Amino acid sequence: MKFRRSERLIDMTNYLLEHPRQLVSLSYFAEKYGSAKSSISEDLTIIKETFEQRGIGILQTLPGAAGGVKYQVKVNEQDAKPFIEELCELIMKPDRLLPGGYLYMTDILGDTALVQKVGKLFASAFADTNIDVVMTVATKGIPLAYAVANYLNVPVVMVRRDSKVTEGSTVSINYVSGSTKRIQTMLLSKRSLEEGSRVLIVDDFMKAGGTVNGMISLLEEFNAYVAGIAVLVEAEEAEERLVDDYLSLVKLSGVDVKEKRISVEMGNYFDQQ
Amino acid sequence: MKFRRSERLIDMTNYLLEHPRQLVSLSYFAEKYGSAKSSISEDLTIIKETFEQRGIGILQTLPGAAGGVKYQVKVNEQDAKPFIEELCELIMKPDRLLPGGYLYMTDILGDTALVQKVGKLFASAFADTNIDVVMTVATKGIPLAYAVANYLNVPVVMVRRDSKVTEGSTVSINYVSGSTKRIQTMLLSKRSLEEGSRVLIVDDFMKAGGTVNGMISLLEEFNAYVAGIAVLVEAEEAEERLVDDYLSLVKLSGVDVKEKRISVEMGNYFDQQ
Repeated sequence: MKFRRSERLIDMTNYLLEHPRQLVSLSYFAEKYGSAKSSISEDLTIIKETFEQRGIGILQTLPGAAGGVKYQVKVNEQDAKPFIEELCELIMKPDRLLPGGYLYMTDILGDTALVQKVGKLFASAFADTNIDVVMTVATKGIPLAYAVANYLNVPVVMVRRDSKVTEGSTVSINYVSGSTKRIQTMLLSKRSLEEGSRVLIVDDFMKAGGTVNGMISLLEEFNAYVAGIAVLVEAEEAEERLVDDYLSLVKLSGVDVKEKRISVEMGNYFDQQ
Repeated sequence: MKFRRSERLIDMTNYLLEHPRQLVSLSYFAEKYGSAKSSISEDLTIIKETFEQRGIGILQTLPGAAGGVKYQVKVNEQDAKPFIEELCELIMKPDRLLPGGYLYMTDILGDTALVQKVGKLFASAFADTNIDVVMTVATKGIPLAYAVANYLNVPVVMVRRDSKVTEGSTVSINYVSGSTKRIQTMLLSKRSLEEGSRVLIVDDFMKAGGTVNGMISLLEEFNAYVAGIAVLVEAEEAEERLVDDYLSLVKLSGVDVKEKRISVEMGNYFDQQ
């Protein structure tokens, strides 16, 4: 069965989008479509240009016998900015305020399209970083972690606060919550993380950074490395923050329970680009 | 800026894949590319044929002024079968056996590409069902729920076993675990689910069905409806199952702890298609 160029372009686009950060050889496509490598190469040039012009991502071509093409998600600043602004608007809504000054974020984290976009932004920011695995702590960070990991083509490991029989043997650490100063426990299944892994830590919310710091301690137990830290919302804290180098989309600068006012601004996303 | 057909095909493919189950008008594309509606219509015919031939999905075209095009993921039996067989092989591995006859599934649920495929299969099976929201219970079902919900373009609501201040007011129910016969609690944030919602329940594992049954009781409290139930693995139980109508990919037919043997077979996925 022979394929016309138009059919190849559609199917290749789908294939590349479904296999981010994977090197696909020209021969693979040539065989799949029964086409000459030169035709495939021309197809890829068109896809590359369109992906870059339309802000879909980057197509990296590696020459030589072991070469091929690799798709990498990459969000332009002009697409990222309005999305982060929209996020800020969403988080500012006064009806999010819960007793004690907490914010209701469940609807935001339940919005699958929004979660995907956050994942895309994070993956885009860490496009040039070597990452083997994404780590998060149950429960709220999970959707974000999977969204990022999907675009980075790496697995997710989930840290828990309680031990479950289905995890097998675990490694646990105690850590001090940065804001409440209470001692807490977190644990990770022993066989879920390989030694030497480069880990991107993802979470929905960071206050003083105690939880993220706990995950960093846990990584040390596994002889694994922090490759990066990404949070959806950081809260501006008067007190010392336990974590320095992180990426955030939104910064919560103030919560006035009495006046029912939530003040937010953009996080540091664009500072680091 | 004018677009060539090849560029349009690539960008439209990306757009449709990113917006499943959303009606996109021809005018939207026509404006986006500065092209005549007739050209867009031709483009969509090519995309539709390719999507169907390559097992990417279905493109539904709705005629008239309010018309447009809608992409829906649809996995062919010839693509689904080898994947489910692969899943069975993976689950059968004897080193998954944990003390007490439990299975270690963390690696499977941490494999983002695999989770996406499971989501695709579930979404494909419920393509013709009206679904407003996907529901799961923390923690293991969450990645699967998001993967399905993404393809169905609906939000996710997460049932919890413990109350968290960040959820606001909640509705809780008690239920009896089908296998251990213990009374347990689950709760859902009051404002996370609208009355009358049609809900697809998703979970990673179903034994007697107590947890799924608990979620059904919770839905009753919200005056919401069960639109479907999908589980990754069902365990064959000698005793009565609490839930009848569900979809499963893999059936665990036996676990022999002494001989370190796990017996699995295909679930009922193809029975219902």
